[in-house]
Amino acid sequence: MGDFAVEQYLKQRRAIVDRALDHHFKQSGRQSQAIHKAMRYALFSGGKRLRPILMLASGDLFGADVKSVMPFAIAMEMIHTYSLIHDDLPALDDDELRRGEPTVHKVYGEGIALLAGDALLTEAFHVMTEPTLAQPSDGKLILRVAHEIARAAGIAGMVGGQAMDLEAEEREADVATVEYIHVRKTGALILAAARAGAILGGAAPKDLKRVARYGEFFGLAFQVADDITDVSQIPANGKEIKKATYPAVVGITAAKSRARELLRQCLKELEPFGRTAEPLRAIARAVIEPAVGKASSAGKRRVLDKDVRS
Amino acid sequence: MGDFAVEQYLKQRRAIVDRALDHHFKQSGRQSQAIHKAMRYALFSGGKRLRPILMLASGDLFGADVKSVMPFAIAMEMIHTYSLIHDDLPALDDDELRRGEPTVHKVYGEGIALLAGDALLTEAFHVMTEPTLAQPSDGKLILRVAHEIARAAGIAGMVGGQAMDLEAEEREADVATVEYIHVRKTGALILAAARAGAILGGAAPKDLKRVARYGEFFGLAFQVADDITDVSQIPANGKEIKKATYPAVVGITAAKSRARELLRQCLKELEPFGRTAEPLRAIARAVIEPAVGKASSAGKRRVLDKDVRS
Repeated sequence: MGDFAVEQYLKQRRAIVDRALDHHFKQSGRQSQAIHKAMRYALFSGGKRLRPILMLASGDLFGADVKSVMPFAIAMEMIHTYSLIHDDLPALDDDELRRGEPTVHKVYGEGIALLAGDALLTEAFHVMTEPTLAQPSDGKLILRVAHEIARAAGIAGMVGGQAMDLEAEEREADVATVEYIHVRKTGALILAAARAGAILGGAAPKDLKRVARYGEFFGLAFQVADDITDVSQIPANGKEIKKATYPAVVGITAAKSRARELLRQCLKELEPFGRTAEPLRAIARAVIEPAVGKASSAGKRRVLDKDVRS
Repeated sequence: MGDFAVEQYLKQRRAIVDRALDHHFKQSGRQSQAIHKAMRYALFSGGKRLRPILMLASGDLFGADVKSVMPFAIAMEMIHTYSLIHDDLPALDDDELRRGEPTVHKVYGEGIALLAGDALLTEAFHVMTEPTLAQPSDGKLILRVAHEIARAAGIAGMVGGQAMDLEAEEREADVATVEYIHVRKTGALILAAARAGAILGGAAPKDLKRVARYGEFFGLAFQVADDITDVSQIPANGKEIKKATYPAVVGITAAKSRARELLRQCLKELEPFGRTAEPLRAIARAVIEPAVGKASSAGKRRVLDKDVRS
């Protein structure tokens, strides 16, 4: 357990995702230089590649070939990246900096930023539907995964959550509203990443359900942790935080406690998989614990017991 | 020939496309009210449904089932509609009116308009990848069509053309640049609509090539005709037209002549299909001729001769 080198694992996985993205976005032919540069600028701006790494780890658990998962993994990162570009636009959050660097529209202008986001979203589906990927028999499997990702990214998922978030700015949010928004805005893509790997690996229905619950708890914990991190940072533009967040509604202590409980529940779902689920476990911990502390010891002990047995 | 009731045909086809879109976008469950309303506002604002009708007509030519083409046809309309919403935003054209009505961001705000466009683009791929559509054997066929549509809508097609268009505003455009932009910005989706119907109908490779050339000529003729129509209208906001357009580069007379020639070439590709291609012929004429006049009589006579024979 304790000997799993999570830092090294994440670094290696990030490197192979970066290579796949770089290969995919080599300049080809005559096209708008600006939009191509803007897409690369956004894609290679220090993202952690959480969603692709999660999808690959979930695929590994069920023996999926990395080569068959990778197109979906990089598609997921394209969708995540487009959502950040559009979120940063003046029409939404009007952010000038992301990860300490000027946002895409600050560098390339609002028009190109808007189009670069559109192009990334479209390219995600272009890469997922590449027919040469499919053996005749697995066309339906590929359609199923692309369909789930579309659902998670669309009005029933991420975009719907963003729209709810925008509407919530105009009124006082309660815990139910905050969770409703989080589940869609951030949770849906993380859940889809976890499920996609398992589906592509041919997971049995009961195992897919476990991975899905892991993804649900993780996704919600991730957003709560992210909100907590945001609260402890002074926004560069001095904007007042009006968004519906966990800390804003229940306070920072209760928010941390909730995130730890969600992490505990998320790890619990992995117990039946024993040591083979160590990467999925390590990813969740590496992302959540720095913001909120370790999962409650009771939950942790149970996970350890199970691991020792398996 | 002359007895093909094009007005009635277009009206009927438009009605079935509208019904399919309406059915797909019924409100379901708790979600942001505003984004759902904004999507419907944009979708049901008097569009001609050219791309879906074209795809259905192309499918008919090869005996495709309307039910199997419809998901792709409405997806195409969603993609077209999202592009109009984003185009109208202040980041791009900053238009206050479309078809005489306030644009989406004028009614719902820029944030919701941006997200409504994102949601429509995502929903297009959600509907195209619906696994229940696919028989096990035709998963690859569906992937192929979705992939082509993604290519046509993305950086190699529509979005790439829009980005080029944006860059062209900063310098003097020549005819080659204008055609390069048109082929991508408008042509790519029209071509994809024509091809998608033929592929779903199982067209033989040589027939698919003919339909593709029809789509290419039609797409370019359509954009030239559209530019000509724009020139003859006074923009409501009094903005100077700076875009790279055919009339701006070669003058209105030469532009009309070019559009008529493109229409002639487009109709010529349909000759081998005889009367069965009458809907495709009628669609092209109905869209192009009001702006530029009839195709050159020589071309027209050839089409007629062929039709009489078949």
